Amino acid sequence: MALLVCKFGGSSVADINKIRRIADKLIAMKAQGHRIVTVVSAMGDTTDDLLELTREIGRGHDLRELDMLLATGEQQSASLLAMSLQAAGCPALSLTGWQAGILTDNVYSKARINDIDPIRIEQELDQGKIVVVAGFQGIAPNGDITTLGRGGSDTSAVALAAGMKAKHCLIFTDVDGVYTADPRIEPRASKLRQICYEEMLEFASVGAAVLQPRAAELAMNYRVEVEILSSFTEKPGTIITEVAKMDKVRTVSGVAHDLNVAKIAIFDVPDQPGIASKVFRALADNAINVDMIVQSQMKGDRNDIAFTIERQELSRALPLVETVVADIGAAGMAYGDDVAKISIVGAGMQSKPGVAADMFAVLAENGINIQMISTSEIKTSCIIEEAQTQKAVQALHQCFDLENES
Amino acid sequence: MALLVCKFGGSSVADINKIRRIADKLIAMKAQGHRIVTVVSAMGDTTDDLLELTREIGRGHDLRELDMLLATGEQQSASLLAMSLQAAGCPALSLTGWQAGILTDNVYSKARINDIDPIRIEQELDQGKIVVVAGFQGIAPNGDITTLGRGGSDTSAVALAAGMKAKHCLIFTDVDGVYTADPRIEPRASKLRQICYEEMLEFASVGAAVLQPRAAELAMNYRVEVEILSSFTEKPGTIITEVAKMDKVRTVSGVAHDLNVAKIAIFDVPDQPGIASKVFRALADNAINVDMIVQSQMKGDRNDIAFTIERQELSRALPLVETVVADIGAAGMAYGDDVAKISIVGAGMQSKPGVAADMFAVLAENGINIQMISTSEIKTSCIIEEAQTQKAVQALHQCFDLENES
Repeated sequence: MALLVCKFGGSSVADINKIRRIADKLIAMKAQGHRIVTVVSAMGDTTDDLLELTREIGRGHDLRELDMLLATGEQQSASLLAMSLQAAGCPALSLTGWQAGILTDNVYSKARINDIDPIRIEQELDQGKIVVVAGFQGIAPNGDITTLGRGGSDTSAVALAAGMKAKHCLIFTDVDGVYTADPRIEPRASKLRQICYEEMLEFASVGAAVLQPRAAELAMNYRVEVEILSSFTEKPGTIITEVAKMDKVRTVSGVAHDLNVAKIAIFDVPDQPGIASKVFRALADNAINVDMIVQSQMKGDRNDIAFTIERQELSRALPLVETVVADIGAAGMAYGDDVAKISIVGAGMQSKPGVAADMFAVLAENGINIQMISTSEIKTSCIIEEAQTQKAVQALHQCFDLENES
Repeated sequence: MALLVCKFGGSSVADINKIRRIADKLIAMKAQGHRIVTVVSAMGDTTDDLLELTREIGRGHDLRELDMLLATGEQQSASLLAMSLQAAGCPALSLTGWQAGILTDNVYSKARINDIDPIRIEQELDQGKIVVVAGFQGIAPNGDITTLGRGGSDTSAVALAAGMKAKHCLIFTDVDGVYTADPRIEPRASKLRQICYEEMLEFASVGAAVLQPRAAELAMNYRVEVEILSSFTEKPGTIITEVAKMDKVRTVSGVAHDLNVAKIAIFDVPDQPGIASKVFRALADNAINVDMIVQSQMKGDRNDIAFTIERQELSRALPLVETVVADIGAAGMAYGDDVAKISIVGAGMQSKPGVAADMFAVLAENGINIQMISTSEIKTSCIIEEAQTQKAVQALHQCFDLENES
């Protein structure tokens, strides 16, 4: 019997009726002869409600206690799903992260899984049970409860699938797969039947949030075949696998856009070693993540440096950057949160020159100004004006002929 | 530095403001030079809300999953209290039952504590922290989460105090001690400054629910000095200790009443061995607890048997008893839920004859009919008509001169 690892997100277990439907789905999968481990997130708004209580308490508490608190949400949904399975006549049991042997480091609130010790899970599977694992959590070497960061249940599922050598990892969510573009922006977007790990990783990191970046990375490293599919339909989803196993490798698989972007530019930065590091050290020390960085030599010995951060970090970043600007003797700075990042992703891009040039041409033809560019082997991203996002997505979707990709 | 173990009930941690007040109280106690371990119950209605979800699921789930679910309530309040302590500048950390080393048997939903392994608690105390332990829960030998039954947080606290040889165990609750009678029924009731373990155990088992019976038993067996006091005032409470350490031993320490009683009588039961066991076996098999039992030889070879159960169990018990009545050839049965149990409790009773006779005389003088009697060494209980409860409590309170006992 093949082992399947499933994962259901918070909206799939938001109330008892939905949990019952998940139970029926799992029982049908078990009837097909599979051994089933399923990971669940916390019910609907549970995590937000708990966070609201911590805001009432105010500042000064540590992340260890936050992990202790938040981990209860998944423990609750796991036990409720196990009860629903039992009430439907199916042997089942729930396990917390520590009971399931999800061993992490001790970085509270964004722990990394070091190892999986699935002995208890195996015992319970051998007794014919469906095993429900509380997602998002694990246990640190000192016996503390840790959490894996928001969306960490994806990571729990992929790690269990890797650690237990599962045939498939099925991520059930509220969308039914990975699309060539966001269907709310481009109604002609089509669902991709297959994409490769590298593409998924790029999609995940440019804001197409169907799978957490860390889960995508783990799946790639351990070659776990992941399928993204809907909790609420029976339609096939998108399979994430190795390039070698794909029916076809596309030059461009999709267009992604990300509005959670703000841009900061510093003018006339002295062209001396160590100057750039001063800027970015100040941000890193305050846990502000910098995404794209562009440095351009404008005149003589002075440069302009521009970079992007997450939009909600802008108000925290500005005073830090102002201090550095004064410190290094730059001429000044500018910033804007009316920008968007548009990306094209495709595993075939690396062997086909001119794709980036095609992208720039299409944007230019549509009167869309490119403010910043960054590229990887299988991705090209441009920062543009936010108001032009939809026009850009639709133009690129048409240019790369993505309408009938599924 | 002396170790204090405290416990705060659900109404004391019902919201963040109340939790903050508890934090302040604990910080003040620590400032007096104590090492502090505190046990907390779940916030206000959390447990009831979780139980409501299980009712939506319906029947068929096992108690293991229920324990998994309910234990989250105390984990949440423990972490929120630890955060509030930290926010107020006091080093603190929360531990679940398994992290705190509360080792139980595997009887889900009413587990008994087998042992305490306080190594982690000791480590954290040594670092100057207040340690907050999630009450009501422990870990079974197989690594499952167990719960100790409703009100089990009292038991958690007393067990920790016993296991760690604490000087005192302080049970903070919404009443400020043990009274000579329920002040809502007898306004002249006075607070007892001291009572002995045996008295507490009798009070707990006759419905004066300031301390769980199992916690009282544990305190007695391990000679833990327990104080019951209010979360919301600074007044001294009631100390529960050994008879030998008491300033004075009273003949009668208090009058307790219990309205959660129903009476069942079976008439003309054949006087043969094994008949009584048939009646009570049927109830025990259905987890219906029988309290008082009276058998009276009425005529020749046939007896009447009367007994009491908890009132809410009456509808479940009646069909079981009816079946047995037919089975054993008894003449018939009667039942009533308009009864109450009135008890007098006092450690000095055992050395002073005639106390029970005094009780019966007072009830008779007040026109109160006694339907059943049961006695222990330090307690006499009578079943009377419910409507006469207040009259009985007040008459006994006056007869035994309890007004100025505090």
